Amino acid sequence: MTHAADSLQESIERTGSIAVVGLDPRPNLLPPAVVRAALAVHGDTAEAVGHAFLAFNHGILSAVVGRCAAVKPQLACYEAYGLIGWSVYQETVAAAHRLGIPVIADGKRNDIGSTAEHYAQAFFGGTPGQSAAPGLNGTPLDNPSPVDWATVNGYLGSDGIAPFLGQASAGTGIFVLVKTSNASSGDLQDRELAGDAGSGHGTVAEAMARLVALWGATRIGSSGLSDVGAVVGATYPSQAKRLRELMPQAIFLVPGYGAQGGSAADALAGLRPDGTGVVVNNSRAILAAWQKSPALAWTDAARAALEAMNADLAQARTALFSGGGRA
Amino acid sequence: MTHAADSLQESIERTGSIAVVGLDPRPNLLPPAVVRAALAVHGDTAEAVGHAFLAFNHGILSAVVGRCAAVKPQLACYEAYGLIGWSVYQETVAAAHRLGIPVIADGKRNDIGSTAEHYAQAFFGGTPGQSAAPGLNGTPLDNPSPVDWATVNGYLGSDGIAPFLGQASAGTGIFVLVKTSNASSGDLQDRELAGDAGSGHGTVAEAMARLVALWGATRIGSSGLSDVGAVVGATYPSQAKRLRELMPQAIFLVPGYGAQGGSAADALAGLRPDGTGVVVNNSRAILAAWQKSPALAWTDAARAALEAMNADLAQARTALFSGGGRA
Repeated sequence: MTHAADSLQESIERTGSIAVVGLDPRPNLLPPAVVRAALAVHGDTAEAVGHAFLAFNHGILSAVVGRCAAVKPQLACYEAYGLIGWSVYQETVAAAHRLGIPVIADGKRNDIGSTAEHYAQAFFGGTPGQSAAPGLNGTPLDNPSPVDWATVNGYLGSDGIAPFLGQASAGTGIFVLVKTSNASSGDLQDRELAGDAGSGHGTVAEAMARLVALWGATRIGSSGLSDVGAVVGATYPSQAKRLRELMPQAIFLVPGYGAQGGSAADALAGLRPDGTGVVVNNSRAILAAWQKSPALAWTDAARAALEAMNADLAQARTALFSGGGRA
Repeated sequence: MTHAADSLQESIERTGSIAVVGLDPRPNLLPPAVVRAALAVHGDTAEAVGHAFLAFNHGILSAVVGRCAAVKPQLACYEAYGLIGWSVYQETVAAAHRLGIPVIADGKRNDIGSTAEHYAQAFFGGTPGQSAAPGLNGTPLDNPSPVDWATVNGYLGSDGIAPFLGQASAGTGIFVLVKTSNASSGDLQDRELAGDAGSGHGTVAEAMARLVALWGATRIGSSGLSDVGAVVGATYPSQAKRLRELMPQAIFLVPGYGAQGGSAADALAGLRPDGTGVVVNNSRAILAAWQKSPALAWTDAARAALEAMNADLAQARTALFSGGGRA
């Protein structure tokens, strides 16, 4: 099967976009027409939220298809609504796949190996049925909404990551949290590690980056990119450059562009010398674009915001490569 | 409202047990009678697994009620089964609460603050309804299965933890991963941090412990214990002693006893000088006790395994405190 990294690179080349659209629906981000329709049918219930989220996601997907590299549902936004939320998540993943859009499930899951295996099953498939009991010949159940990539947290080390790497070239990949975009990420991630005889070993984030490079070294696709990527926030561009040295073949999934303060140039700080290796997430500025463009239909506003993001990133990329700052 | 730490301590005193029963159902751990009943009704489907998991959890809960401090459903085991799994999880939480057993949701969630808030809602309540849209007067939705405690991963630092601390004395608490029980936990957690002028600052796990103490300092109940606890594996007892010094008021949730190799004395290494502050998880040895005791009904086997664990812990505790090793 095709490497996840090659599939994502192919999507980038096909759409001409390195944007990832974050599907993070929240009740207060939805346009009034969607809110009214949901409340009219369901009242002020979890069902109303589910109805609204699904209608909204379908609209966003129709607006962004062909113009972004991938979509990234944020599991927390769905999980907060229990069964209804999970149902919307599953239907959203299926809808994205029907449109040919790669899906990154953003759940930042982590556990010891024997447990992480079940998270990997939830994302990628292979969940055992009840006939997996001793003495029966179990076959895995169908997964109704397998994803292409999942975000994971590597605090537990190699054996907690291994299950997510289960099948080489399974067509799936992971993005491991390395340097996150939030203000407090330095509480742990920026701590300096002790070195030998005065030569520092870098930060906790750099140690994680070395692990990511190790985990991904045997999972390089024909694109030269690995199925083990890294989350590296746009809000710390100087760190991104250093982290790129440590993870030359990892795709960086970059949050923090836009609402969190990262510029296009910041978001691209981790580009590889050949100009590949970065995808940039944006959620709020696309989902809530209707708030700033009242003259447009909300789906048109989302599309325009994505196109503005694509143009912003393209311009910054041209500047980077023409300015002599890159090989 | 009562501090979560006080409620957990009260449960320990009421039951005379510091055991936490891990509710981690897996198809290959279930007794044949449960498996056959589920397959007969539902065939080899996800519904069969859901049927079996729920029947199994009800049986385990009936066997352990009054004999353990808390139960700890492992979310990965349920999440692998999608909507059916989540439904079983919710019903399991509700069933535990009907029996008066505190519930620790083991999901190891983590994200930036604005997203972590939704995980906190999923666990503890406060999820906004669709009437949270601008201009409407939203009230939070009911949470069908709020839990008492949730495990979280602190790699993202303070602002990712803050939402889980939302309401002081809300009756809820968190266990932050500090030193996990798995073999690879040292990949990151044991790395030494750089110190000032040769004096080391300890390991990454110790840095996390200092954060836990900081986050929990304003959330101490009348028991002297904090609503911000720590996950500290039984498999690294010497580290547990050091971590206790750094987190004097945190409750340690200790995995790794039994199947993973930690002894009762290892599991108790992080006890406070007054003998409080530790709860010890066990999953497999209780859930699959029927495999080793074919003469017993499976629920009786689970109860006997829990009672053996309680006796093992009590004996180790007596030895610790009578041997002069403790104040």
